[in-house]
This record gives sequence, C-alpha cells and structure tokens, in this order.
Amino acid sequence: MKALTFRGRHKVNYETIPDPQIKALTDVIVKVKLCAICGSDLHVYHEHEKGMDHATAMGHEFMGEVVETGKEVKKLKVGDRVMSPFSTSCGQCFYCKKGLTSRCVFSQLFGWVENGRGLHGGQAEYVRVPIAENTLIKVPEGINDEQALLLGDIIPTGYFCASQAQIKADEVYAVIGCGPVGLMAILGAIEQGAEKIYAIDTIEERLSMAARFGAIPVNASKINPVGLLREVTENRGADAVMEAVGNSAAGKLAYQLVRPGGIISMVGVSTDESMAFSPTEAYNKNLTFKVGRCPARYLMNKLIPLVQSGKHDFTSIITHRLPLSEGVKGYDIFANKKDNCLKVTLAC
Amino acid sequence: MKALTFRGRHKVNYETIPDPQIKALTDVIVKVKLCAICGSDLHVYHEHEKGMDHATAMGHEFMGEVVETGKEVKKLKVGDRVMSPFSTSCGQCFYCKKGLTSRCVFSQLFGWVENGRGLHGGQAEYVRVPIAENTLIKVPEGINDEQALLLGDIIPTGYFCASQAQIKADEVYAVIGCGPVGLMAILGAIEQGAEKIYAIDTIEERLSMAARFGAIPVNASKINPVGLLREVTENRGADAVMEAVGNSAAGKLAYQLVRPGGIISMVGVSTDESMAFSPTEAYNKNLTFKVGRCPARYLMNKLIPLVQSGKHDFTSIITHRLPLSEGVKGYDIFANKKDNCLKVTLAC
Repeated sequence: MKALTFRGRHKVNYETIPDPQIKALTDVIVKVKLCAICGSDLHVYHEHEKGMDHATAMGHEFMGEVVETGKEVKKLKVGDRVMSPFSTSCGQCFYCKKGLTSRCVFSQLFGWVENGRGLHGGQAEYVRVPIAENTLIKVPEGINDEQALLLGDIIPTGYFCASQAQIKADEVYAVIGCGPVGLMAILGAIEQGAEKIYAIDTIEERLSMAARFGAIPVNASKINPVGLLREVTENRGADAVMEAVGNSAAGKLAYQLVRPGGIISMVGVSTDESMAFSPTEAYNKNLTFKVGRCPARYLMNKLIPLVQSGKHDFTSIITHRLPLSEGVKGYDIFANKKDNCLKVTLAC
Repeated sequence: MKALTFRGRHKVNYETIPDPQIKALTDVIVKVKLCAICGSDLHVYHEHEKGMDHATAMGHEFMGEVVETGKEVKKLKVGDRVMSPFSTSCGQCFYCKKGLTSRCVFSQLFGWVENGRGLHGGQAEYVRVPIAENTLIKVPEGINDEQALLLGDIIPTGYFCASQAQIKADEVYAVIGCGPVGLMAILGAIEQGAEKIYAIDTIEERLSMAARFGAIPVNASKINPVGLLREVTENRGADAVMEAVGNSAAGKLAYQLVRPGGIISMVGVSTDESMAFSPTEAYNKNLTFKVGRCPARYLMNKLIPLVQSGKHDFTSIITHRLPLSEGVKGYDIFANKKDNCLKVTLAC
C-alpha cells in the first residue's frame, strides 16, 4: 500500500510499504478514506520525539471503512464506516472505566513504531486497528467524513483542554495559541459555558477565526496580553489559562496570565525541557496545573450529538485538502505555516 | 518586650525589641500566651528565603489575649481570648469571598519584615494584628490554648493538603513526610473520607504517630514505597500523593508514586529550584499538580467543630513545651530534629 512514512528529521516519504495484516483475533483492517496531519505529528517530523523506526506510517487522525475483521470481532462488519481516536483502548481496564481512555493499560498510539514494536499510522491506505470493537466507533448519521476525522482527536482534545480549566460562566479565560488545539479549546470552553475567552496569538487569520468562534482576539504582537487580562479582572489575571502552544515562552506566559488560585491547562506535548515555573512560584500563586493526553475515545461518544447538531463549524479549520499522494507537500505547508495553513487533510 | 528575633543564618536571638503600637484604626494588639515554631520558620532560619530584616520578631503561629484595640474595632474587646491564622485577611475581597483567604489582596504574613515593611511575628510577648476583626477569631468554648494555636496553621494546612488531593473513600493515598504537615494531612484525609493512606518517612517515631493517626506506615529506608504502592494498586500507583517535605527528592518520589490521572498536592514552600517533573513527564501521567498556601482563616471556622469534638488528638504532635525565653534552644532542637522533635511550643 501507499503511505506517508517517517524517514528522519524533516523527511516524510510517500512510498509503498507492506499492507497491514490481521495479527490478533480482535483486530480490524480499516481502508482509510480521510486522514489529517496533527500538530503532534510535527514532534515526530522535527524529531522532538526521537526513536521512531524509519518507514513507519505516520499519523493518528483517520477515518474510513472496515475491510477485514479478526475472528472475534462481532460488533463491526466489513463495509462499516468508522472513526478512530488516536490511540487504542480496551474499555475494560481501571482507566477506561474511569473515562481516562488515553491511559488504557492496552493503549497504543497510532503512528509510532519503535524497534519493531507499535502501530503504524493512519496516513496510509490501510491501518490495522487493535482491540477494534472498543477502539473504533461507527460513524453515526449526520456526521460527514471531515467531522468524523476531527472527532477522533482535535475536537475532543480542545474540549478536554477546556474541561481541565473547570469552566464557569462568570470567569475569565485565556487561550494561548490559536492553532487547531487552541481553536477547538475555544469551542470546548464555550460549550462548557464560558462567556469571556481571550484568544492570544500573533497571526491575524488565526485570531479572526478565534473571533468567529466566539473569543475575544488579542494580537500579542500589538497588545501585552498580561496587561490586558489584568485590566479586565481588577488586576487579578485569568481564572484559567489554556496553553495550546507547548513551548517555553507559552508556558511562562501562562504563568504570568493566571490569577492566584487559578488553573493552567495543557493537552499537548511541550518542547520545553523543564516546567515554566518553580515550585515556589507555583506556591505563590496557589496554582493548579493540569496536563495530559485527551481521553478521546471517552469524549467522542459525548461529543457526537454536538457535532450532529451543526452548532459549530468545526471543519472550517481545515485550510488545505490534498490527496494522500501530496502528503509530503502537506507536511511542508503545515510545518512551516505556509499559506495561512491551519489544518491539512489528506484523501485516499 | 521580649521576642525571638532573626539575626541571620541559623541565628535567632531572645532579646528586647520595641513594643508594637496600634498603627491603624482596625489594628489590635495581642498579648501572646502561646506560640510555636513552624517548619516554614526554618526557611527563614536556614535563609532559604532571603531578605528579612534583622531584629524582626519571628513566627506566625500564636494565640493570646486582646490587650488594646484600634478605634474602629468593635467586634473584639480587651480581654478576648483569640487565635490567629498565619496571615491577615480582609474578608471582603475577591479571594476572601472565594475562601482563598491566603491570597487576600491585603494579606500580610506574620513574622516577615523586609526593608522596614511587613509584620513582626508571634514569637514575642506582643503582636500587632492588622484588619483584626476579620483576621482574629475568638477562641470558642471547648478549645484549649494548644488546640487554638494549632488551629491557626498546622491543622488547616494538613486539611488543605488533603482537600487538594480530592479524597474519595475507595482510593489509595500516599503522604510523603510525617512531620507536622504530613501528620495533619493524614488526619485531614481521614476526616475527608480516606481509608487507605500510606505514610512514608524514615523516622520510626514519626511513623508510629502516623500509624496511631490511622495511616499505614512505610519506612522508606527499609521498603521501596514505589514498589509497595504499585503492589497494592494493581501496578498503578497512588491515586493522589500529599508531598509534605518540599525538596527535590520528595518531589521526584511524588511523581514516581502517583498513578496516571492522579494528583500531587503540596502545601509548603519547596527548597527545590525547579519542578521535579518535566512537562512531558507530567503529560505522560495526565498529572494534576496543586500547590499553594493554605487558606487558614477560611478553614479555621470549618474545623472548629472538629477540634471541639475531641475526635483526633491533634496536640499529641507537640513534643517540646518550652518558655519563650528558651526559644533559641527550641529552634536548635526543631531544626536539627533533636530528641525526636516534632513540634515546639513556647509559652510567654
């Protein structure tokens, strides 16, 4: 099959690799219809995360159709239209039962093979999906392919970022970074009742989209967001900050923005090697810091009705629609924010 | 008056300093009956926190009797027996109304004067208490002097440490360090419904007291607490860890002990310059980290009935009862953990 493969730093190939095979009785093979490049794929691309085997199929955002099922798979059939979270989960373990499906004891991330172990990704014509009956969800009525694709990662991730911020109607929020995670965090926060969300970025196009989604745009190259947030909160700062960039500067800004007793929420891997605040700085602000991988599988069920409702135009973040064969170009556009790129989808 | 004064690193004097005077209409002067040395006084003593003026009266744990009131003070009278949290609070601001009295916008810590500004402490014959009507509480019936003293800091601080850990009856907790904060955190956790608390220390006497308070003692010099906590949680780790030591080793141990999706709670100033985990490590555990100064004033009201009930023997942590005049010796005993010292009180 054709796939976009990891070939070292800043090198993704479109090439032929072996078709995936059913390995366990609970596996399913999905023929990918649509996949996407995620911000966290860039951690692999830039080799911020090291160790992935060359020729691994990239990506963990995909949807498609079941084309083969393991012998124990009963609830899924060939021909089913399915969407997938970015990692597998069993539905039975301590973490799955608690709704923390991203820490399932059988969790495997799509698009990560190291020393021959792991799962190939969804930027390929076919994907093997383990524990498929629990991992995959049949796409329900009224959800199109692009919505199904975004339901697997970016929509729940934004929602989770907001839920960590413990949204209340009368509080003031800041979102740092208006890339896909930040934009989805804005929608997630609104959905959870937020009325005042300051969206911080330096790219006007992203800020415009944040404003369309209901946030108050703050261009940090023109206005000092710390001063502004102080101004609108009687000198306190934001009740919670959703940090959707994941680097040292964003971490420091989050600390400056948050009020004493406030929350900093993160949902992405940071490139920063150490925390942006010391224990004493955190103590001095009575800080709550929450970070982690979104329990996408758990939240997908919860968010299906919202996507079906059509209330938010989630797919408007997709700026580039390319065929899988042009995925190498897709990575270049996305990684280098060319042409106001926010989100690239790839069709098979 | 006589006071224990800061005179530089590891140097506390018992000497005569000027009597405090009413400075504001809302001030009160308290004649101290009983005061105590707190673990955080040692940050000053060891000069982990630098900048305090020489000749500042030390300490922030005290109780006593009102001997003079500012002209606007109506609710307190000369002769009232009062207890005090470690810092002042107004009761009116955003933070006070939220119950985060430790971040009151008018908050001042007792026992910290820097460049002539701040408040002298309670290890003295007299203390000036600003915003006294809100800061002080009349000691109610059934609470003795030692209980009133501990209600001002260590009892609510332990309770707060446990409340940050979001105690549930069926979860497994670890407390790192069985000094006064750790021991009070054990009682706080039990009061909030915890049934399984593993108390980690290396000093047998402290572990015995932890066991008497209802925890399961773990001597870390004999047993690996990480292995033990894994064993009793199907290899997960503690649902929440209360870190009551505040150094690098304790921070790292807390990270190792906590399960994915768990909470690390801290209530003290740490001597560690950077956080014990990186953003990626925190992400990999879906960590919640909560730290801050206990809202003692807010919690004191809540905890009065518990202390009155006599359910827990809070004052059993007091190992040394000395006169204020022997406070220099008290610091030496406490700072160097001589004679199994846990808590030193000083009587005027």
